[in-house]
Amino acid sequence: MKLLVKKFGGTSVGDKERILNVARRCAADWQAGNNIVMVLSAMGKQTDVLIDLAHQINPDPPKRELDMLLTTGEQTSVALMSMAFAGMGIPSVSLNAFQVSMHTTRVYGNARLKRIDTDRIEHEIESRKIVIVTGFQGVNKYDDYTTLGRGGSDTTAVALAAALHADSCEIFTDVDGVYTADPRIVKGARKMKEISYDEMLDLATLGAGVLHNRSVELAKKYNVPLIVRSSLNESEGTVIKEVAKVEGMLVSGVAADKNTTRISVLGLEDRPGVAFKLFDLISKKNINVDMILQSIGRDGTKDISFTVGSDDGQTAIDAIRENLKSLHAKDVSFNENVSKISVVGAGMMSSPGVAAKMFECLYNSGININMISTSEIRVTVLIDRDDTDRAMQAAHDAFGLED
Amino acid sequence: MKLLVKKFGGTSVGDKERILNVARRCAADWQAGNNIVMVLSAMGKQTDVLIDLAHQINPDPPKRELDMLLTTGEQTSVALMSMAFAGMGIPSVSLNAFQVSMHTTRVYGNARLKRIDTDRIEHEIESRKIVIVTGFQGVNKYDDYTTLGRGGSDTTAVALAAALHADSCEIFTDVDGVYTADPRIVKGARKMKEISYDEMLDLATLGAGVLHNRSVELAKKYNVPLIVRSSLNESEGTVIKEVAKVEGMLVSGVAADKNTTRISVLGLEDRPGVAFKLFDLISKKNINVDMILQSIGRDGTKDISFTVGSDDGQTAIDAIRENLKSLHAKDVSFNENVSKISVVGAGMMSSPGVAAKMFECLYNSGININMISTSEIRVTVLIDRDDTDRAMQAAHDAFGLED
Repeated sequence: MKLLVKKFGGTSVGDKERILNVARRCAADWQAGNNIVMVLSAMGKQTDVLIDLAHQINPDPPKRELDMLLTTGEQTSVALMSMAFAGMGIPSVSLNAFQVSMHTTRVYGNARLKRIDTDRIEHEIESRKIVIVTGFQGVNKYDDYTTLGRGGSDTTAVALAAALHADSCEIFTDVDGVYTADPRIVKGARKMKEISYDEMLDLATLGAGVLHNRSVELAKKYNVPLIVRSSLNESEGTVIKEVAKVEGMLVSGVAADKNTTRISVLGLEDRPGVAFKLFDLISKKNINVDMILQSIGRDGTKDISFTVGSDDGQTAIDAIRENLKSLHAKDVSFNENVSKISVVGAGMMSSPGVAAKMFECLYNSGININMISTSEIRVTVLIDRDDTDRAMQAAHDAFGLED
Repeated sequence: MKLLVKKFGGTSVGDKERILNVARRCAADWQAGNNIVMVLSAMGKQTDVLIDLAHQINPDPPKRELDMLLTTGEQTSVALMSMAFAGMGIPSVSLNAFQVSMHTTRVYGNARLKRIDTDRIEHEIESRKIVIVTGFQGVNKYDDYTTLGRGGSDTTAVALAAALHADSCEIFTDVDGVYTADPRIVKGARKMKEISYDEMLDLATLGAGVLHNRSVELAKKYNVPLIVRSSLNESEGTVIKEVAKVEGMLVSGVAADKNTTRISVLGLEDRPGVAFKLFDLISKKNINVDMILQSIGRDGTKDISFTVGSDDGQTAIDAIRENLKSLHAKDVSFNENVSKISVVGAGMMSSPGVAAKMFECLYNSGININMISTSEIRVTVLIDRDDTDRAMQAAHDAFGLED
C-alpha cells in the first residue's frame, strides 16, 4: 500500500465532466489499495472571475480580502470532487487550509508555507478516505487566509507529500511530461523519462513552464519524487528525482525564455562600488536581476548590462534614468527584443566543451550572441528574439537530443 | 457609541451596486461613531447556483460536502463587502465561521449554534474596524463547516448581538417592517412600530414570512432588541422587544399560512393509546404536526384531524394508509385546499372574547371554519384556501387594525 499525492490544476477540474473523470482515475488507484491525497486548484478560470468581481467593487482591493475571496475557489473544487467520489460509493473528505492547518508566513497574495499539522489528514487516511485538500491557500498567524502566489497548488502538493512522507507526488497538467525542448517549436523534441531536481530547477526558472521552481526546490529539499504527467491520458510522464547518472546525457534539455529585457548602463566611472549602487537600486524596486555582464567602455569607463523580466523592464529603466548622476553613469539603453536560450544538463559538470559546442552551433546558424551566462549545469545565451525558435532547434540538434 | 449588528440578506448584496449601497449606508452609522458588526448572506441566488452545481456532480451529495460548498457563498459576500469599505477608506475585516469560532452542533445542513468565541471580533472592533461576518455557517466539533438551515443568517446575527451585548440587531430585508397583515392582500394593513417577541413568534410560525422563528426565539432568550427594516429605504422599521403594554391593542396582527394540508383519520377505536400510536407514527417520519382536533365518530369510534406542512402531506397520508390496521382505524381522508388564518396579540391574554369576535366576523363573511386552535395570545382557524384573502381582510377590519 502506497501513499500517493496527486495534484490537479484548474483545467483538469474545469467542469463537471472533468471532475468526474479525475475522480474515476483516482478511484482506480484507491481501489488498487493505495491511499490517496489529492490537491486541487480552483475550477478553470474561476480565480480570474473572482479577481474581476473584486475589481468591479474596488480597483485596488486589499490583499487580505482578495485572499479571503480567492480561497473560495479551491474550496468549491474540493467539495465538488468529494461529491463525485460519494456518487461512486468511495469514501472521501474535502479539507480547506483551516482544516489541515496549512500554516504560512503572513504575506497576503504571496505567502510561503511554514508548517502543516498532518493529524487530521492522517486520521482521515487511516479510515481509508480519499483526502481532498485545497491547493494554493494557507492560514497565517493572524488566523487569516493567505494564498501562495504563482504555482501555489504545486507547492501545496509537494509540501503535503513531504509532510506525509508520501511515496510520490504526481503533478497532473496539460502536457504529458518534461521534454528536451518545447515540442511545439523544436522538431524531434523528446519526453524525458527522468530528470534531476537541479536540471528541472534550471529548466523551470528558464521558462520550460511545466513546474514552478518553488515546488521543485521544495521537492529537492525533502527528496520527494515528483512526477509530471498528463491529466488527459495515461502516459507515464517524467519523474523528477535525485538522479545519480553514472554516464548520462551531456545535456538534458533546451529551454527558451522570451520574457526578458536587456538593460545596459553605459559610461560608469571605473571605481569600486558602482555595481553595488546600481544593483542595490534595482533590488530596492523589488526587481530580480538575471544575467549580468560587465565590460570595459570608452575613456576608462565601464558598461554593465543585465537582464530583467519583461514586466520589470520599464521600472528598472526609469529608476536608472532618474539616478544617472548618483550612479556616476552617462547613459542607459535597453533592448526588449531578446530571448534567453539555455541548455541544461547535470552531465556537463564533468564535461567541459558544452559551452563551446553551444556557441558553435549558433554560429553555424548565423545567430548572434548578446550575452553569456553559465552555471555548473547550464549554459545560457541572450539572442535576438526573432532567432529563438531557430536557436532552440540548432541546440537540440547539436546535442543529439532527438528521438 | 453604540454597538450595532446589521444583517443583510442575499438580495441586499445581490450585485456590485447593492454591495456598494449597503457599504455606504453602514459607513454613515460608523462615521457617526458607532461600532458595526455586519452579517451577510450569499449574494442573490448564489446558494441556488451552488446547489445546482452540486446536483450536476451528484444528485444526492453528502450533506457535509454540500455545507463545505455552500459556505463559499457567504465568504464571497463578506470579502467583497470589505473591499467596498476599503474603497471608501474605511477600515474593515471579513471573517468566516472558522475565524469567529462559530461553534455549532454537528448536524450538517441544519446545525444549531452552540457558542461563539468573541475574542477576535472584539479585538477588531477595538481597533475601530467594521467587522463583516459570514451568516448561515458554523463549525462543528469535527472542525467541519456546517450550515444553519432556513433563516440561518438571521440566527447568526441575533446570536452575535447576544454574545457581543450589542445595542440592537437590525435585520435588513425587502419589506420595511412587520405589518398587521400582508399589505399586498389586506387593505389598510399597517406597519407596526413595535411588537413583542411572543407575538412575533406566533406571526413568524404562522407565515408572516419576515423572520424565521429561530432567530426570534433566540432574541427573546437573550433579550436582544430586533429591528426589521428595509435595505432599500431609510424608514424606521419595526422593533421587536419585550413590550410591556399596559393597555395595548387587543390584536396586533393577522397572518395567513397556505402551506398546510388537513388529514383526517376516521373510525379509530375509542380506547387509550390510539392518539399516541398515530402521532408516534407521524413523528417517526420527521413530520411536524400543527393543529390537532379529536371528535366523536359514528358507532362509538372517534376521528382525529390534524394539519401538517403541504410538503409532508403525502408522506403522512401514505404512512397512515399503510398502517390503518395497526392503528385500529377505518380510513384516512385529506384536504390540501386549506389555509390557516391567525390573529395574534399579547393583549388577548387578559381579554376574553377575541375568539368569539373572530368566529363572528368569519360567519358574517360567509366563511366556514374547519378547525380551531388557540393559545394564550393567538386564535387560529382552518378554512378553505379560496377564502384566505377575504378572511384576512375580515379579521383585520373586525379588530380595527387599519390605519
